[in-house]
Amino acid sequence: MLSKKMEIADLFAFYGELLTDKQKDVLSLYCLDDLSLGEIAEDLNISRQGVHDKVKRASNILLGYEEKLGLMKKFNLNNSLLNDISSKMLDLSLCLEDNSINNASLKEKVKSTITIVRDDIDNMIE
Amino acid sequence: MLSKKMEIADLFAFYGELLTDKQKDVLSLYCLDDLSLGEIAEDLNISRQGVHDKVKRASNILLGYEEKLGLMKKFNLNNSLLNDISSKMLDLSLCLEDNSINNASLKEKVKSTITIVRDDIDNMIE
Repeated sequence: MLSKKMEIADLFAFYGELLTDKQKDVLSLYCLDDLSLGEIAEDLNISRQGVHDKVKRASNILLGYEEKLGLMKKFNLNNSLLNDISSKMLDLSLCLEDNSINNASLKEKVKSTITIVRDDIDNMIE
Repeated sequence: MLSKKMEIADLFAFYGELLTDKQKDVLSLYCLDDLSLGEIAEDLNISRQGVHDKVKRASNILLGYEEKLGLMKKFNLNNSLLNDISSKMLDLSLCLEDNSINNASLKEKVKSTITIVRDDIDNMIE
């Protein structure tokens, strides 16, 4: 249940601007303020079932955008590849600080890093 | 005029799946097949003005998506930063092949490359 709410929160951050103001208001209370359906019902002075329906409808719209465009999945994949490149840069900077490393080993490390970074970039740009 | 058509073609590739099948058909003939309004009118057996209106309406929908979400701009920016990282990897691989380069210079080059790549990644993830 919580992971479903987090998925909707992610989609809301991504595609939320395509919703109407009223849909945004309800999802904002649900995802960002993390209120329960009952609390939102009280806030907006409508029934709990009404809130449930509005949340479900707005969520389905967001899920529909992602199903058609897949842009959030693409962004998330890219971010994980960018994090991979970041960690490779950290490894390399630690090698630079290691005075015991010889020239040949450093070159080998740089070479393997370049290969990984290029592969990551190819996977992002394709 | 051509650059406008290219902009619409880019937006169509990005958000096209959100259009109706009929809107997709018209924009596909206009952007992908690069037909004139007159040629599309003949193909679809409607007036040139009708084609003009349909192209304009579908284009405005795509422009509206980008205005609200800005995802294509973000993707394009990221791609240009990824190309920058690619070119830095190329520079570094050329350094590795240069037998005249000493250990200190190589380390300096690696260090500056790490800094640039990290900055690029920060700009992409923010």
